[in-house]
Amino acid sequence: MQLKYAIIGSGGIGGLYGGFLAKSEHEVHFLLRSDYDFVKQNGLQIDSVKGDFHLSSPNVYKEASAMPVCDVVLVCLKTIQNKILKDLLPSILHKNSVVILVQNGLGIEKELSDIFTNVSVAGATAFVCTTKVGPGHIHHAEYGTLTIAKYCGDCDMILNQVADDFINAGIQVNLSDDLNSIRWKKLVWNIPYNGLTVVLNAATDELTFNTATRSLVIDLMNEVVDAGRICGAKISDSFVSKMIEMTEKMTPYSPSMRLDYEARRPMEIQTMYTNPIKIAKEKGFEMKKTQMLEQQLRFISDTQQTVKE
Amino acid sequence: MQLKYAIIGSGGIGGLYGGFLAKSEHEVHFLLRSDYDFVKQNGLQIDSVKGDFHLSSPNVYKEASAMPVCDVVLVCLKTIQNKILKDLLPSILHKNSVVILVQNGLGIEKELSDIFTNVSVAGATAFVCTTKVGPGHIHHAEYGTLTIAKYCGDCDMILNQVADDFINAGIQVNLSDDLNSIRWKKLVWNIPYNGLTVVLNAATDELTFNTATRSLVIDLMNEVVDAGRICGAKISDSFVSKMIEMTEKMTPYSPSMRLDYEARRPMEIQTMYTNPIKIAKEKGFEMKKTQMLEQQLRFISDTQQTVKE
Repeated sequence: MQLKYAIIGSGGIGGLYGGFLAKSEHEVHFLLRSDYDFVKQNGLQIDSVKGDFHLSSPNVYKEASAMPVCDVVLVCLKTIQNKILKDLLPSILHKNSVVILVQNGLGIEKELSDIFTNVSVAGATAFVCTTKVGPGHIHHAEYGTLTIAKYCGDCDMILNQVADDFINAGIQVNLSDDLNSIRWKKLVWNIPYNGLTVVLNAATDELTFNTATRSLVIDLMNEVVDAGRICGAKISDSFVSKMIEMTEKMTPYSPSMRLDYEARRPMEIQTMYTNPIKIAKEKGFEMKKTQMLEQQLRFISDTQQTVKE
Repeated sequence: MQLKYAIIGSGGIGGLYGGFLAKSEHEVHFLLRSDYDFVKQNGLQIDSVKGDFHLSSPNVYKEASAMPVCDVVLVCLKTIQNKILKDLLPSILHKNSVVILVQNGLGIEKELSDIFTNVSVAGATAFVCTTKVGPGHIHHAEYGTLTIAKYCGDCDMILNQVADDFINAGIQVNLSDDLNSIRWKKLVWNIPYNGLTVVLNAATDELTFNTATRSLVIDLMNEVVDAGRICGAKISDSFVSKMIEMTEKMTPYSPSMRLDYEARRPMEIQTMYTNPIKIAKEKGFEMKKTQMLEQQLRFISDTQQTVKE
């Protein structure tokens, strides 16, 4: 079976994963907004730790309505933009299409399947350092593994094929049957590092090697683990220390929220903070420190918007 | 009885309260460091909401050893500097002197009386907006009440006299018999506003009128009230809402920690955060949000010192 892929959002994540699929001769259709004219004319450049490559004439579109119906839709937007999916997706879906949300945060698959009740939905977390450095230009610095899990629908066969396609394209994929656990495990890293790099205006290494913030990162991670477990996620006892070790070895890094903040784009506070706090609270668990970080981020976001206007 | 006063530290607090005493013809001896030469030559200027005045030749000293023995020593240093009191105080104390710490934070009276075991010690909180705006130049914007309470020693009579002297000088004084309560009540305001104005780079009004940080300020205040009560402080149920109302009416203000931060002076993290957290923990109460704020402040302080070097 030859799958047709749609890539919605061609920033660091979408450009990278769509680019790898296209390079290994899968049929990939990219939806672009601001970069459309540039990529139409100049193609897509991927500078990757796995080897640089150039796609000279990828299939690019300015409007979803111009795209063909696809089997797999990789949503690589910021969750802030998910409200546009309602109008954007219908014309590119057939009855067996699967929509995979390659995004951060919690509660996003439910939101989508509440709107598209008959569509197969899956979620994916990307363990990768990748950034769009210019129009049609992606810099892939480190890692790359995708972890994919079904949320709803009869899509196991197609997800197996997606995994094979990525593996053939040189991207490691883990197929999981526990989306809830992979989402919470991702939050264990995302909640402390995304928020604190913004609030304290610092990169991951500074936070990890300072005694006070190292303790705080660990406190926050433990709080997320506790909340996740109460919400049914399976997270091992050694997970927090593994995340700290991994971060120590990483090249100093600005997580996506810090990049958004610095570029004055909206931050993913709702899906990365507000939703997990709310979901844990419904199970009777108060994420006190996470909530404090959320309140600080809301203040920063509110006052930043004021500056913009 | 005519009391002799020593003022140790003549910044916004010491300059103001010593200035008012001197203006109403009490015997006041000021210990100055960097401003000594300026004040010796030009005197002390107080621009006060209660009326401006100038002291043309106050008794000023560069070294404590040159000062006379005094009955009342008002310590108006930042608590960061309290380590110098060990060497500074002995020459100005007689056996009935009382040392009053007009400072912020918790545990400071105990620290002092552990060193000076036979000396009477009291604590005071100043409810005042006052700043040193230049050498020998104090700007007193709002409020002014001192609340004084004994920590140890046979000093009730002398404290009554101190209260009378201040009242005669135009400064409102409350004498309390519960130092623990006045220290914790002061922290209810100090803990949220001092730390958050530094971490979020904002003034008191911005934090109070933004929805997210208003909630956070209230959460932190409630945590301090809970901790204080567990440590024996008497704080009324309406105290938090009173503090919020009061702050809403205040002229937008940068608390002392923010002024210290902006001037690259050390911040009073130890006495305002670390000591209360530790004292509450000894009673079995974890100040989770306060601790998070302390960790953020430690990071800021650590990285700021790095910039300085």
